[in-house]
Amino acid sequence: MEAFTTRASAQPLRNADELIDSVETFIFDCDGVIWKGDKLIDGVPETLDMLRSKGKRLVFVTNNSTKSRKQYGKKFETLGLNVSEEEIFASSFAAAAYLKSIDFPKDKKVYVIGEDGILKELELAGYQYLGGPEDGAKKIELKPGYLMEHDKDVGAVVVGFDRYFNYYKIQYGTLCIRENPGCLFIATNRDAVTHLTDAQEWAGGGSMVGAIGGSTQREPLVVGKPSTFMMDYLAKKFGIEKSQICMVGDRLDTDILFGQNGGCKTLLVLSGVTSLAMLQNPNNTTQPDFYTNQISDFLSLKAAPV
Amino acid sequence: MEAFTTRASAQPLRNADELIDSVETFIFDCDGVIWKGDKLIDGVPETLDMLRSKGKRLVFVTNNSTKSRKQYGKKFETLGLNVSEEEIFASSFAAAAYLKSIDFPKDKKVYVIGEDGILKELELAGYQYLGGPEDGAKKIELKPGYLMEHDKDVGAVVVGFDRYFNYYKIQYGTLCIRENPGCLFIATNRDAVTHLTDAQEWAGGGSMVGAIGGSTQREPLVVGKPSTFMMDYLAKKFGIEKSQICMVGDRLDTDILFGQNGGCKTLLVLSGVTSLAMLQNPNNTTQPDFYTNQISDFLSLKAAPV
Repeated sequence: MEAFTTRASAQPLRNADELIDSVETFIFDCDGVIWKGDKLIDGVPETLDMLRSKGKRLVFVTNNSTKSRKQYGKKFETLGLNVSEEEIFASSFAAAAYLKSIDFPKDKKVYVIGEDGILKELELAGYQYLGGPEDGAKKIELKPGYLMEHDKDVGAVVVGFDRYFNYYKIQYGTLCIRENPGCLFIATNRDAVTHLTDAQEWAGGGSMVGAIGGSTQREPLVVGKPSTFMMDYLAKKFGIEKSQICMVGDRLDTDILFGQNGGCKTLLVLSGVTSLAMLQNPNNTTQPDFYTNQISDFLSLKAAPV
Repeated sequence: MEAFTTRASAQPLRNADELIDSVETFIFDCDGVIWKGDKLIDGVPETLDMLRSKGKRLVFVTNNSTKSRKQYGKKFETLGLNVSEEEIFASSFAAAAYLKSIDFPKDKKVYVIGEDGILKELELAGYQYLGGPEDGAKKIELKPGYLMEHDKDVGAVVVGFDRYFNYYKIQYGTLCIRENPGCLFIATNRDAVTHLTDAQEWAGGGSMVGAIGGSTQREPLVVGKPSTFMMDYLAKKFGIEKSQICMVGDRLDTDILFGQNGGCKTLLVLSGVTSLAMLQNPNNTTQPDFYTNQISDFLSLKAAPV
């Protein structure tokens, strides 16, 4: 049975303890929630410590595919946060985990449009790959009759953010998807914006994915937010009920939608790209359960004494 | 009043004279109709001469934006065809013509993701531009706090096929569209495939347009086929009734749709990318009025003697 439901407007978080007690796992988006660019957001270490002391499971998800889990672990470490690799789920890892989940054959290869993080995760998962940063300097020849050869054993093209994107990669990936029977088109994410530096908004992985979509006229299989692949993976891996998860993020169209698509509780923090005005704009149709300024509000928003 | 009509299946062209007599203008797609790569298709010069001798207006349209009208004129000349610049409508010209048609201010600038043809046509039309092949070697800096500056006077971003496409251009074009108030996003075409060489199909302008669509989350204004801009422009410029035009092309999704969108008669030739099997595939919903092997059939398909 299906029912059409209208989601109520987001409520300001007033009683953090009630929310904390109602779930067993918190999934945090990273940029805009834990850090901004290279700066830790105020009160984050104390908040995470408090949640751990209450026995909550903490998971960190990011659509950024340029780093592997291990590389992300170093970023947490540098910022003084005590987070283990196993708690980190980047879309680079999700791409490799997706291939494992469908038993992608080990004798097939993966063509990568993206950066080092995807290569590292594919390697850890035992897959053969080609492409990546190495193809960033390649050019096509313009002479008449020129034909680009491509590897007929490529069974999947993984596309993520790639600052070394070029026409060679577009054509190589397109040939694989178009001409290799059954070849998958996997996107780490379709984000319009990414955070290369915090000085401005940078065109995100959505542009590389849009390019390959434009030439193949195929829709990608997205493994990052807001697709539910990572949520399903986490729920299965840790044996968690999704109603026992609270997704915390700063973006309506990725984080909050991701939580809602997965059937979780959702909390929007205003420490990243979304302002209260954007949340309350009548054109905004994505309403989290709660919103608050930043996650350190968990430390101060207590139930009013009765 | 609107009516829903079911278009009948395409008929093989049996009486060319009847079709020729029923219209005053023929619009020809170029690649797959006039030439294939660098080779003229059999019988083309004689066919064009015959149509001219009957007083027909001939127009040549192409979604290819890498060349200007003048540069295309040279290609016709090299192939021994007697075609003047004024008869050629490439999507590079269409982009400039579109800007003129909306009185795009001469004190604004155009950022170009594309090749030389667009730059040449903008220059002829008197517009200031930046970008193009020149930005093909530019890279972004990766240091923290780095910000890409962009010209606040850019009022339109024109995107066409660009074999020197890179992340610098994606970010520059995205910044203009996102941050300059009212900045237009104009696509020369969204073709999945282009013909760099005739040895294989190459990823087309649709990939560059898809990239900018992915990062701006905006739909482009398309000036090439199958959008009707060029058809409307031609009809106005030459004072032709659209019912007096026959569009001749080798692609269902651009040429034939372009003709149908414009309210013209349509003839599919099988000398390019579309085979009879593709035309007659039950999943194909685009049916031209007529189909034939190649335009030189105009010379042989006469009415049966009564």
